[in-house]
Amino acid sequence: MKPRIEAGVLGATGMVGQQFVEFLQGHPWFELAWLGASDRSAGKKYAEAAPWRLAGAMPDSAAGLTVEECKPGAAPRLLFSAMDAAVATEIERAFAAAGHIVVSNSRNHRMEPDVPLVVPEVNAEHLQLLTEQRRRRGWRGRIVTNPNCSTVVLAMSLAPLRPFGIRRVVATTLQAISGAGYPGVASLDITANVIPFIAGEEEKMQQETQKILGALAGNRVEPLAACVSAHCNRVPVLNGHTVTVSVELEGRPGVEEVRAAFEGFSGVPQQRRLPSAPARPVVYMAEADRPQPQRDAARDRGMTVFVGRLRECAVLTHKYVALGHNTIRGAAGAAVLNAELLHSEGLLGS
Amino acid sequence: MKPRIEAGVLGATGMVGQQFVEFLQGHPWFELAWLGASDRSAGKKYAEAAPWRLAGAMPDSAAGLTVEECKPGAAPRLLFSAMDAAVATEIERAFAAAGHIVVSNSRNHRMEPDVPLVVPEVNAEHLQLLTEQRRRRGWRGRIVTNPNCSTVVLAMSLAPLRPFGIRRVVATTLQAISGAGYPGVASLDITANVIPFIAGEEEKMQQETQKILGALAGNRVEPLAACVSAHCNRVPVLNGHTVTVSVELEGRPGVEEVRAAFEGFSGVPQQRRLPSAPARPVVYMAEADRPQPQRDAARDRGMTVFVGRLRECAVLTHKYVALGHNTIRGAAGAAVLNAELLHSEGLLGS
Amino acid sequence: MKPRIEAGVLGATGMVGQQFVEFLQGHPWFELAWLGASDRSAGKKYAEAAPWRLAGAMPDSAAGLTVEECKPGAAPRLLFSAMDAAVATEIERAFAAAGHIVVSNSRNHRMEPDVPLVVPEVNAEHLQLLTEQRRRRGWRGRIVTNPNCSTVVLAMSLAPLRPFGIRRVVATTLQAISGAGYPGVASLDITANVIPFIAGEEEKMQQETQKILGALAGNRVEPLAACVSAHCNRVPVLNGHTVTVSVELEGRPGVEEVRAAFEGFSGVPQQRRLPSAPARPVVYMAEADRPQPQRDAARDRGMTVFVGRLRECAVLTHKYVALGHNTIRGAAGAAVLNAELLHSEGLLGS
Amino acid sequence: MKPRIEAGVLGATGMVGQQFVEFLQGHPWFELAWLGASDRSAGKKYAEAAPWRLAGAMPDSAAGLTVEECKPGAAPRLLFSAMDAAVATEIERAFAAAGHIVVSNSRNHRMEPDVPLVVPEVNAEHLQLLTEQRRRRGWRGRIVTNPNCSTVVLAMSLAPLRPFGIRRVVATTLQAISGAGYPGVASLDITANVIPFIAGEEEKMQQETQKILGALAGNRVEPLAACVSAHCNRVPVLNGHTVTVSVELEGRPGVEEVRAAFEGFSGVPQQRRLPSAPARPVVYMAEADRPQPQRDAARDRGMTVFVGRLRECAVLTHKYVALGHNTIRGAAGAAVLNAELLHSEGLLGS
Repeated sequence: MKPRIEAGVLGATGMVGQQFVEFLQGHPWFELAWLGASDRSAGKKYAEAAPWRLAGAMPDSAAGLTVEECKPGAAPRLLFSAMDAAVATEIERAFAAAGHIVVSNSRNHRMEPDVPLVVPEVNAEHLQLLTEQRRRRGWRGRIVTNPNCSTVVLAMSLAPLRPFGIRRVVATTLQAISGAGYPGVASLDITANVIPFIAGEEEKMQQETQKILGALAGNRVEPLAACVSAHCNRVPVLNGHTVTVSVELEGRPGVEEVRAAFEGFSGVPQQRRLPSAPARPVVYMAEADRPQPQRDAARDRGMTVFVGRLRECAVLTHKYVALGHNTIRGAAGAAVLNAELLHSEGLLGS
Repeated sequence: MKPRIEAGVLGATGMVGQQFVEFLQGHPWFELAWLGASDRSAGKKYAEAAPWRLAGAMPDSAAGLTVEECKPGAAPRLLFSAMDAAVATEIERAFAAAGHIVVSNSRNHRMEPDVPLVVPEVNAEHLQLLTEQRRRRGWRGRIVTNPNCSTVVLAMSLAPLRPFGIRRVVATTLQAISGAGYPGVASLDITANVIPFIAGEEEKMQQETQKILGALAGNRVEPLAACVSAHCNRVPVLNGHTVTVSVELEGRPGVEEVRAAFEGFSGVPQQRRLPSAPARPVVYMAEADRPQPQRDAARDRGMTVFVGRLRECAVLTHKYVALGHNTIRGAAGAAVLNAELLHSEGLLGS
Repeated sequence: MKPRIEAGVLGATGMVGQQFVEFLQGHPWFELAWLGASDRSAGKKYAEAAPWRLAGAMPDSAAGLTVEECKPGAAPRLLFSAMDAAVATEIERAFAAAGHIVVSNSRNHRMEPDVPLVVPEVNAEHLQLLTEQRRRRGWRGRIVTNPNCSTVVLAMSLAPLRPFGIRRVVATTLQAISGAGYPGVASLDITANVIPFIAGEEEKMQQETQKILGALAGNRVEPLAACVSAHCNRVPVLNGHTVTVSVELEGRPGVEEVRAAFEGFSGVPQQRRLPSAPARPVVYMAEADRPQPQRDAARDRGMTVFVGRLRECAVLTHKYVALGHNTIRGAAGAAVLNAELLHSEGLLGS
Repeated sequence: MKPRIEAGVLGATGMVGQQFVEFLQGHPWFELAWLGASDRSAGKKYAEAAPWRLAGAMPDSAAGLTVEECKPGAAPRLLFSAMDAAVATEIERAFAAAGHIVVSNSRNHRMEPDVPLVVPEVNAEHLQLLTEQRRRRGWRGRIVTNPNCSTVVLAMSLAPLRPFGIRRVVATTLQAISGAGYPGVASLDITANVIPFIAGEEEKMQQETQKILGALAGNRVEPLAACVSAHCNRVPVLNGHTVTVSVELEGRPGVEEVRAAFEGFSGVPQQRRLPSAPARPVVYMAEADRPQPQRDAARDRGMTVFVGRLRECAVLTHKYVALGHNTIRGAAGAAVLNAELLHSEGLLGS
């Protein structure tokens, strides 16, 4: 058995950081060996620095680690970034410059032209931007990003439809509270309520989707020409973002043809049997009232996007509902799958 | 002071029936004098026949009424119908034939060509269908209907936009559990969950909206030509249906122009100062994250539709969020306002 | 008509402050004329300084007031205090020294021996402590307090039982999230969850109940000798604290006798018809499954405590469930009723 | 590897039946081989007969089984009963008479003097009642029961305290909606609400606790002499019953001594390493605000009871909060552990 690759987490004490700690437990390739956080936490045991917010107990293997400052040095080469957007730009760049592979969930670098924004089943080939990244930035390391938690649900559900020609997309999200971190949404704001606004979310969904579904054109990505319009809402759900989607498909395929496209969809992670890859990235549910976040989001370790209710749309051509686990497929799991993709490409070094 | 007009409720023991009982308390024109329900309840005092499901206590004036069978006879001329769809067709027709004015919240007759489907601020003139109704049916009485609870929110928010030319509408609802009656949605199905399906709801929203916004053409209504596509979802909210709307307006007005249309909208109930008419049927909220069902749906006695977040849509031309109280503006209050409109037209008789 | 008495609110921008602003709307005796808050808010219009957290809209009459610093001077004589505990001690004393009548909802002075802790129906006579307060403190003004939001539910439900001899009380609370202020409880902590701990709450329930139910003995209150043991829990409810109570009554009355005591209970506010007094301070509900916070807490303007399910207890002698609206009867309404009591005693001056 | 023992489920289509189906997946000793339900379902595939209500998907191994009528005959010897109380008495007796080992979660036989009501860690020795059962009833098979879902949490938390002498117990429950089956509690009744009543629950908690903690006296159980008083409430939680407990311990041990008793508690399932036994039946959580149902109930496969907040009680001697997973440790898991206990005693035959 090969020794596992050591990995660290930047911003380990926050909610996304905790999700990385949890998701990496028992990972066959990566071994959680380093936890970085703010100066305030540095020097403390993780168990003291990070009140555990997830269900269940803090993993023992993490509890005993000492939290370090987020400065290049003793950290492992592979780092997952759960940095807050306020500080991620500078810190991620410092680590990349110092030779680290920064696999980031932060939004800061996603839209940079030379930073891959990757969903491995959808656009693994965008990793080729890394050549341009190295050329431009002169970093010894790299930064690779995954999309925003609601984007990933939309993008993965659209990916199987690319052969039909995606022209226009109207999407409405019903997003879980865990997407807002901790303390995040006040209970007085969301109990038995809907908040029809999430700052910056609609722009991210629109732009990131176009980049992810865009075509690699030499050293850059040509964004998908399709228009995307999003309505983002917070609902009182713990985990799982639901998205209703109306889409215009140029080829005007029949409903059965579109359903077959969802069901037949697969990608690089499935071909290479990456450890965190779900058996099928998109699962179509035939029941009239599914998928549902409380019942479905956590299935298959939270890495599958579920689609249902495919039917014709009176305005565009088709409509359906999609669901994904926002803190797993939409955050920690997304980044870990990106790192697995990098490793399968030989990009994590020996 | 003129004597009040006696009114009755068909289907008084169910949830919508209870909402009628509550909404009619203290009504300046109508006096609740008769309660009809199934044979099982007939003969009991209302307090015994109907376990009260609404917040607060059952109104004393109703508690002591004896529940009657739903058969024409001693019932008042004006009847509000909260009949279950399974029995509404036959019973409502029997009462109409016998000379009663049936102001119905049931879905059964809404799409009949000679039955007005009315939101008084939007299409008061559709009452003219009653002439055709009498001609065709030969009833001494009449049936007038109000729309489904999610339709009314959409239709009222679209009405101010008619001058711009409505061409296409994509709407996603986030509907409260009270819309499903009692016992309605099982708590195991909706607690911290979303159910992305409500049987028959999308069809109703699409067809009813086209009829309400349609033009009266002689003895019939020409449906609005615009396509309407709806995605209907149940969310864990008590009262208030939220609807995200993308709309294509032919005239491509500026955002400020559209907002002014919302703000300037008014209708017959406001002109005639009908007792249940809100000061303004549509209120635009400028706050970034409003309207919200828990905080806004019950304002203005639940009769106002709130609109917010108006902005450009990358796919159609404009988008916004709308909210209305589903059991008041979407049910009991809607029907009572219809009866007030009828009375203001002299259609309730002496 | 007599001119109304001007009143102000200390700490007007927080949640309790907003509840004062709302509860005072249309008050027949008191006119909201002054709003004090932190330096950060001072000088702004209330509408700008205080994002409105309550259902519905901010009252227009308050929206236009300019927020002032919390320093004695131009403030009206009568002040309601919603100050945060961190600063209430000093500020309330400064105002009392300067001649203001401070009717406080803050916990800081409740247990001071010379400060009345009053529920008007229960211990109006404790206002006599004000003589001792003036003697000891030398203030020109006064401080009067109301209890913690869960205490008031317990104390009001116990008050009718005093004639039977209260010896021991075991109480478990199921408290609403609005009791924790804003942002208060994180939604991730309470959605579909119970938090079995509220800092300081059990101590307050135990000590305050003993003081409120204690006997005035000259210039001090002799605490009730009964032991009180509390278990405090947060539950996902918006408004209304539910309390299960087991009590040992020395006289071992029959259940019917105890129920009659609840039903016959009345106090000074009812005798004097104080404007905010409910018709009956304690209402017994005979239904098997009531009271319930969502359905009952807001009845009677939120000023009534509801009791139900009275039965024998196998360990102590009796048990029941009690419910009260925590932000009204447990905060703003409690203080306003205290001010009304003061006015009815001639203690607000001319 | 020994062949697994075939097992069936009576009442397999209901909620508890589904929990048995789920919990038995991958069981090392028992193999789910037979599903019984009402005549209405008999003859259908399980996937058609039982709309799956639990999170995730119906186990494939069950989906393809044909549902049988609940009549002795082809069923395996070992049967788990999830029968509705309305029919359980007759059916369970028929199967026991016919030679089946009925391990029942139904309430019907729990309080029969010759039927063991067993929590394996607490009163494994009560299985000796089976001798008396066979003598009295003349059945070739047997009936063994597990307690009600809230009882098991209380009883397991009290068991470690027996050495101190339990004299009196006051308990208040905050029970999850999944305890009421499907459709169970209407969402309109429990959303953002508390229902302070569960029919029959308080009686069960009181009587069953006394039987479980009672002493075996020859061919019968002498109930624990301690008085138990329960207040039962439904709260909007999905899984996990929380119980606040005040207890009077004769020996008046110190808090540390009581905590050590919780932490040192273990039983027969742990000694024999039964497959479904948790490492420790009772886990004490030191955090100030734990255990919590959303975060803790499902830990350790839902078989552990968590205790926290142990402190002195001003009325009895000690108080604490306990939590257990109501559908696992309180239903399906409880019965499966009982069957494992029976097997470890050689009572399932070869």
